[in-house]
Amino acid sequence: MDRLFSPRSIAIVGISPRPGNLGQGVLLNLRDHGYTGHIYLVGRGGDELAGLCVHRSVDELPGGVDLAVILTPAPTVPDVLDACGRRGIRRACIESSGFSEFSIGGPDLEARVVEVARRWGIRFTGPNGLGVINLEEGVCVPFAPMTKDWVHRGRVSVLAQSGGLIQHASWLLTAAGMGINKAVSMGNKVDLNEADFLEVLLDDEGTDVIWLYLEGLSDGRRLLELARSSSKPILMLKAGRGRASQQILRSHAAALASDDRVVSAAARQAGIVRVNDFRELVNLTKAFALPPVRGNDLLVFSRSGGTAVMAADAAEAHGFHLIDIPPSLGEEIRRHNRADVIVPTNPVDLGAMFDAEAWVRLLEEGITTLRPDAAVMSYIYSFAWEGEMARRVAEALRDLGRRIEIPLAVVPAARVDDIDRLERSLGFPIFREIGDALSALAVSREWHTRRTLYSQFPASHARHTQHAIRGPQHPIHESPTLDEALRTVEAYGISTADWAVARDAGEAVAAGKRLGYPVALKVISADISHKTDVGGIALDIADEAALRRAWAAMRHRLQERVPGSAVQAFLVQKMIAGGREMIVGARRDATFGPVVMLGLGGIYVEVFDDVSLRVAPLTRFDAEEMIGQVRGSRLLRGLRGQAPADVDALADALLAASQLIVEHPEIQEVDVNPLVVLGKGALALDARIVTG
Amino acid sequence: MDRLFSPRSIAIVGISPRPGNLGQGVLLNLRDHGYTGHIYLVGRGGDELAGLCVHRSVDELPGGVDLAVILTPAPTVPDVLDACGRRGIRRACIESSGFSEFSIGGPDLEARVVEVARRWGIRFTGPNGLGVINLEEGVCVPFAPMTKDWVHRGRVSVLAQSGGLIQHASWLLTAAGMGINKAVSMGNKVDLNEADFLEVLLDDEGTDVIWLYLEGLSDGRRLLELARSSSKPILMLKAGRGRASQQILRSHAAALASDDRVVSAAARQAGIVRVNDFRELVNLTKAFALPPVRGNDLLVFSRSGGTAVMAADAAEAHGFHLIDIPPSLGEEIRRHNRADVIVPTNPVDLGAMFDAEAWVRLLEEGITTLRPDAAVMSYIYSFAWEGEMARRVAEALRDLGRRIEIPLAVVPAARVDDIDRLERSLGFPIFREIGDALSALAVSREWHTRRTLYSQFPASHARHTQHAIRGPQHPIHESPTLDEALRTVEAYGISTADWAVARDAGEAVAAGKRLGYPVALKVISADISHKTDVGGIALDIADEAALRRAWAAMRHRLQERVPGSAVQAFLVQKMIAGGREMIVGARRDATFGPVVMLGLGGIYVEVFDDVSLRVAPLTRFDAEEMIGQVRGSRLLRGLRGQAPADVDALADALLAASQLIVEHPEIQEVDVNPLVVLGKGALALDARIVTG
Repeated sequence: MDRLFSPRSIAIVGISPRPGNLGQGVLLNLRDHGYTGHIYLVGRGGDELAGLCVHRSVDELPGGVDLAVILTPAPTVPDVLDACGRRGIRRACIESSGFSEFSIGGPDLEARVVEVARRWGIRFTGPNGLGVINLEEGVCVPFAPMTKDWVHRGRVSVLAQSGGLIQHASWLLTAAGMGINKAVSMGNKVDLNEADFLEVLLDDEGTDVIWLYLEGLSDGRRLLELARSSSKPILMLKAGRGRASQQILRSHAAALASDDRVVSAAARQAGIVRVNDFRELVNLTKAFALPPVRGNDLLVFSRSGGTAVMAADAAEAHGFHLIDIPPSLGEEIRRHNRADVIVPTNPVDLGAMFDAEAWVRLLEEGITTLRPDAAVMSYIYSFAWEGEMARRVAEALRDLGRRIEIPLAVVPAARVDDIDRLERSLGFPIFREIGDALSALAVSREWHTRRTLYSQFPASHARHTQHAIRGPQHPIHESPTLDEALRTVEAYGISTADWAVARDAGEAVAAGKRLGYPVALKVISADISHKTDVGGIALDIADEAALRRAWAAMRHRLQERVPGSAVQAFLVQKMIAGGREMIVGARRDATFGPVVMLGLGGIYVEVFDDVSLRVAPLTRFDAEEMIGQVRGSRLLRGLRGQAPADVDALADALLAASQLIVEHPEIQEVDVNPLVVLGKGALALDARIVTG
Repeated sequence: MDRLFSPRSIAIVGISPRPGNLGQGVLLNLRDHGYTGHIYLVGRGGDELAGLCVHRSVDELPGGVDLAVILTPAPTVPDVLDACGRRGIRRACIESSGFSEFSIGGPDLEARVVEVARRWGIRFTGPNGLGVINLEEGVCVPFAPMTKDWVHRGRVSVLAQSGGLIQHASWLLTAAGMGINKAVSMGNKVDLNEADFLEVLLDDEGTDVIWLYLEGLSDGRRLLELARSSSKPILMLKAGRGRASQQILRSHAAALASDDRVVSAAARQAGIVRVNDFRELVNLTKAFALPPVRGNDLLVFSRSGGTAVMAADAAEAHGFHLIDIPPSLGEEIRRHNRADVIVPTNPVDLGAMFDAEAWVRLLEEGITTLRPDAAVMSYIYSFAWEGEMARRVAEALRDLGRRIEIPLAVVPAARVDDIDRLERSLGFPIFREIGDALSALAVSREWHTRRTLYSQFPASHARHTQHAIRGPQHPIHESPTLDEALRTVEAYGISTADWAVARDAGEAVAAGKRLGYPVALKVISADISHKTDVGGIALDIADEAALRRAWAAMRHRLQERVPGSAVQAFLVQKMIAGGREMIVGARRDATFGPVVMLGLGGIYVEVFDDVSLRVAPLTRFDAEEMIGQVRGSRLLRGLRGQAPADVDALADALLAASQLIVEHPEIQEVDVNPLVVLGKGALALDARIVTG
């Protein structure tokens, strides 16, 4: 990666003096950012450009060039790359487009590029991407204009597929007074992908915060594992959520589609903050530039009664607690108030206090006295002191913010051009709206809290499996039947409601007697996957006579409805009274691998779409968080005087499902539906396993 | 209102040459906006200021001044107002603070102000507000700086309580190239309130869009009725949603608190768009400056693959349909692509098209050919044409947007300062992010669609009440018992499960026989409001013997648990099998009056907080929308092969509850819980009415 981010020499391949030639953009950017390494130009026309000799082909280059930036038309790229290989170049940024994002011929061309690169051991970005930026060393190879007047150096690094987004991100970060440090426009990610670059950025001293803009994930599981170990906030804008965008992705970039809910779950587990738009990216980056928010106690100063009310709403919405103002500080505040009209509450309303510098002194006193977990200062520039004074107050707030170890969110309101200038130049983050500030502080709080908590929970197994484990040494055979599925989940520690297999009515009656009535009768058949649909389940069978009737009726129904199917046997199962029905399941995602699911059982899971997902293996923390995330699991706590259900047993079942799918790569899907959670313990009533 | 918004003369009361004097700000604003009426100054020091004579008191003013702007300290305001009265001044903007927003003495002072004003027939804004602005006539009386360099005239008018928000709104609207027309900072709204001003703005020719910033509602019902008749979009930022902010409001401004969910419901009924922050206010105002969005068909052009994907996500999230590109247009697009790399889908990816003017031509062709309901153009300024060309493309898009009758959302990305300048000066709205554009277009679509639909539905009654109506002529007596409550809802057309009153076991048995088993037994007592808690309900009574046992057991339980209470009788009720339990209720809100509620019955209403509210009287449209809004009502449609339930009967029950509470002002609360919705009809099993 060193040769990519810190090349000692760069060859721009595909340059010409023609107006609009893209290679000129690369040269402009490199020179503008003061790149001090050697720049070589390659263009068919030869000659000279901007004081540099233009080589006619890569073959004319001296040996040992660190990085080739390739902008020639797509069909020529394999040959150009081959020439690079011959000249000992081992890193490239392929900026040309016309590959897999283009449906006619593109994919073949891309395969040829990969083949040539493999042959020479060349690692590359793109194609169809703008390559790398490292402003610490003046490296800036995009062909699009990214000159330093508006691409400032800062401590945020950006990984994106689309090149336009790298530009946009650098403009936004520069406008926010923050700037970028490193950036990669990865394009089609045929070779190097987000996980490769993330690994570099996690260790990079110049990077404090990482932005990921992704349309598809190349290697979700590796990304998750890298991010999990990160001590830096990673903010991810992941597009391609819905069906419409997935269709474009097929034509736009070689990006694998993953279930969007799995992406969200994985991000949460990895500590990646998923955002929805650029404004959120910018706001969160500001919050992460402040000291960590470690609790809920909030102190708000506001110059306008209106923003005080909005601040109180936003504080409540984001789980902050407005701490009480002690009388001593209250007295101090009233003393400063010219018109003596303010009752000192929190938010402290500075409405009638016209000495702006007193605000900052009072704020500091409030923060020092009350030690809140975060503070907010919202103010409007007033008439008497608009110019110099506004700047002075902002600088005083900045200095205060830098001096204290408590995050201070500054929210000034003024003419938009004044705010723009202030934001760009103050050297301290400012927020545009009170809601922006509080939502960002809340994310910072959650991120820091979760990081601390999460580190205490290694991936864990269900509590009861040790002595009963079936283990990976016995792979599960194809299409296990109901009894086999129940036995498998039992082996992993999920208890089941007592059951027996019956091959004839006599065996069924014997089982009914042993288990005790009422019982259920269920068909066992490798051919029948939806038992209910074909009448293969009978519930609440009260006695022997009813069991015999149910047996006969079911045999008859099955012969009628699924005449060809092979019925192996029937399951007689003890009915369970009471408890709450949940669904526990697991399956494999295309990019993240095994995923565990929890949902409210019965019809309500559909009505309220009330499920929670996590990538396996789970920690106990994950399992508990999943239970908290399913709204219907409030029922488990025992509403309206009902006894609470055994939430620990449910967590165990989730860990068991996690362990089962992780240890058995042959399992595609497993469902325990329903799992009845009782006052003590939880019992599977049904299980289904799909292999292959 | 004319004398307030178009005064021929204005007296500024409380002016002095001292630096920081607030009156000077008023004078500055008036002169800067070119107010041509006469300005009188009143200040205790007398003398002259800025070329105008300063009168020592209001009594020195000539008669017939239209408007007094009062900035003297709060305790002096009653006397100043009295003097205004004596001089024939009948309109005032009281900008002084220190009244009801200040807990010590403030409310008394405010009462005196009201008393003086009433005596003279003076109507006023404030106190504790910045008064009125009417840029059409140069009227701008806030003391805070609002000079015309950054307070441009436009077609948006703003009503707010807080003065800071008026400033902020005008800066934001000016930055967005839109500007304000009229504005009122209403302060404590002791006399004139938002409904008074809304009435003016609805008829105002200079106003196209109205912003409301409210902390509390002075007269919710009147606001609702005015807004309902509005042909102009009203965007409301209503703060004071949570408990924390309600506490401040008590000290900050004399604002009545209403249940926030009722506020949202009322806004929806009135066609008021409720927004969460300033960004949303600005974005929606831009969308409403475009032609109406009347359907879901969307055409998107994007210069970056990344934003194309984001656009597709946002389109799907907001219910837009990306229409197919016909081959002829596709061919045209490909012809313009330099590198021939794009497969023409919608969003149309212009990634390899470097002729910016061709974008606009193709976009026009696309719009003309496909006639979408809305179009989006997202592009990034590229290197070859950053300066003049960028401007030219933006102007071409503006001209196209003005020429066509289809809303065109332009979303350019560039250096933030370039975008700022463009936005301020283009004379056509531009959006900052693709998500902003699509969410705003979706709101415009919903607003226009709902307006059309809504106008077809007058307030209506339940279908079956005409012949059974109890009517308002018989007020419901205090604390009606269960049987009286059931009879009342029946009279309004809500059927009940058959029931009979039994005074002794013999009557109960007779009733059981007549109704048919199984039955339920419920205590009738004016003292017992929660029957379940004291064991006053027995269900599923299978036969006569069981009924006798239940009767005895209940008597015993009640004597034990609520020994002092008077049990009038018992209700024997037919048990109803099947159906879906819902809750239908109504109650009175502090500012909106009668409100109807619908929720999923049983325990799930608590778990999922799944309720819908509307202000009564309802239209059938309201009732149907309420049912759609309750997620659990999907169960009524008949999931998983169950028969659908009678949704019309549920709508009738909602209309009945609406009619009942509207016709009986003595009713505080009515609950039908549960209402069982069957395949045909719906039956109330229980009803509770609270009067007083």
